[in-house]
Amino acid sequence: MEITLRAPLDMHLHLRDAEMMQLVTPLTTETFSGAVIMPNLVPPVTSLEMLQAYKQRIMANTEGHAFDPYMVLFFKDYTEAELAAAKDHMIGMKLYPAGATTNSEAGVAQIDSVEHVFKMMEEMEIPLMVHGETHGFVMDRESEFLSIYEHIATKFPKLKITMEHITTAKAVSLLDRYENLRATVTLQHLIITLDDVAGGLLNPHLFCKPIAKRPEDREALLDAALRAHPKLMFGSDSAPHPISKKECCGCAAGVFTAPLAVARLAQLFDQHGALENLQDFISENAQRQYGVKPAEKMVTVTKTPFEIPQAYEGHGHRVVPMHAGETLDWKVTSIT
Amino acid sequence: MEITLRAPLDMHLHLRDAEMMQLVTPLTTETFSGAVIMPNLVPPVTSLEMLQAYKQRIMANTEGHAFDPYMVLFFKDYTEAELAAAKDHMIGMKLYPAGATTNSEAGVAQIDSVEHVFKMMEEMEIPLMVHGETHGFVMDRESEFLSIYEHIATKFPKLKITMEHITTAKAVSLLDRYENLRATVTLQHLIITLDDVAGGLLNPHLFCKPIAKRPEDREALLDAALRAHPKLMFGSDSAPHPISKKECCGCAAGVFTAPLAVARLAQLFDQHGALENLQDFISENAQRQYGVKPAEKMVTVTKTPFEIPQAYEGHGHRVVPMHAGETLDWKVTSIT
Repeated sequence: MEITLRAPLDMHLHLRDAEMMQLVTPLTTETFSGAVIMPNLVPPVTSLEMLQAYKQRIMANTEGHAFDPYMVLFFKDYTEAELAAAKDHMIGMKLYPAGATTNSEAGVAQIDSVEHVFKMMEEMEIPLMVHGETHGFVMDRESEFLSIYEHIATKFPKLKITMEHITTAKAVSLLDRYENLRATVTLQHLIITLDDVAGGLLNPHLFCKPIAKRPEDREALLDAALRAHPKLMFGSDSAPHPISKKECCGCAAGVFTAPLAVARLAQLFDQHGALENLQDFISENAQRQYGVKPAEKMVTVTKTPFEIPQAYEGHGHRVVPMHAGETLDWKVTSIT
Repeated sequence: MEITLRAPLDMHLHLRDAEMMQLVTPLTTETFSGAVIMPNLVPPVTSLEMLQAYKQRIMANTEGHAFDPYMVLFFKDYTEAELAAAKDHMIGMKLYPAGATTNSEAGVAQIDSVEHVFKMMEEMEIPLMVHGETHGFVMDRESEFLSIYEHIATKFPKLKITMEHITTAKAVSLLDRYENLRATVTLQHLIITLDDVAGGLLNPHLFCKPIAKRPEDREALLDAALRAHPKLMFGSDSAPHPISKKECCGCAAGVFTAPLAVARLAQLFDQHGALENLQDFISENAQRQYGVKPAEKMVTVTKTPFEIPQAYEGHGHRVVPMHAGETLDWKVTSIT
């Protein structure tokens, strides 16, 4: 059994920078036609110049694979002139509540203080991407943020807002209630719950932000993905950390899935008899939502064993992927 | 400011065995007059002979401090003769649902299959101590188990049942509804929530079973402790693991608090203006509930800085305590 996917897209990806970027970039560019590149570097990507320079660094590491990096500006209080200049070079702006996740210290402390930026973005048709978590109790952070999504979506009805890496059933339900809300969802949030992070032994390699939630949340996310809800897009949030920051006292948040995401999604959709919906979930929905025309790429995934390595190594780094050392039932067997 | 505590008791303690026992036993016997010694060794303590031998090994490591180990049999389907022989040598029997926590593989798979043992215990006045968690979603395991407590408490009204290391507001509320239910609570569950384990960086040293719950759960536990609810006893559940099993991929559950529990409790009760209730919480409640007369010991705790070491080392082991490297405001300054 096999399926050939046209132009897989990863609508939420962390490539980091320098040696780590050199290690992980080809692991995405091999199987994806394009990816939305998160701007939370240190310092964050906050100017057109930084954005273009980062894009060049990424393109120097694609190892020749056809690939479009959809660049993103780190949200801040830009002038209209700055936005106008950057508009055609980016797919959107990413808003982080200050301190909500890795390298988000420069984020927004008071959402209502930046509504004039939302207004400009609405008028200029620049999409807003949001890490939607409050600073509340870890299991409630996304739920508590939903009213902020509702507020922005209502006040700026022409602003396209992407709820990034949603993790709750309540967030799924917003998709059908606000025309201008859409969402990405990761691979791991379709598969795991908090049980997999902290229900047995503590598993740092499945620890991410937002944290995996309850079984009923996973079910709602999986159901929406399997039926390829037209406003739900695949976004891996694949986030490499050096192993020294994962297997240690005080482990950083992020799951590294880039090299296995396509195969694991095929396995998941096949298990649930929904393989015919994977093309929409992994590409068409995003093309429609963002109006992008990705690089040509045909990726064939076959039901055959795929041994996930214990780690991906190179450029002085060692990154442990999800499912390290396990064998998947599906494998990418051809890319043209 | 200072307080002198009479005969502090730790009603739930893991001393392990061999070299680890040699390292951690004196850290408890120094400040506590007695402790309930959990029987989940490998293999578990399942006979009078094993129990007496374990007690001897513990007593060989008290470093001369006055100390009573209250021994516990690992719950299983004992004969009446076995229970009759062991009765006077133990404080109770500890029931673990199979696989619920560290070294509980030999536990009970079906609670209703052992009700004849509960009946014998009720008649022989042997207390039942329970690790009350189901195999459900990690945040629900204790809540789901509460109906089992209610069932046993109702069916065996003369059986004294201790809900060990409770972590939820719902468990607190059962104390006032069933005459024969009482509970222990740990230090960490009075202080932390899941936020401290997985809300920022992942913190393996605060990972334990039952996992720390929601803010409203902590508030209910703290409120009951501060007012020295007469059916709530201090039980540290201090559980040393070798550092190799904590700061690693797949970390074992357990927080090591024995050497700082008395000082940290004094600080906590002082912060909340409840210092006058600490004696009841840390000793009198347990004496009344179990009818024990602990070894004489007067422990003076003073409001003065106490630097917690990064680790306690010895006998080939290195154990990281809660609050490692931090400075507490209170310190044990005299023991007589």
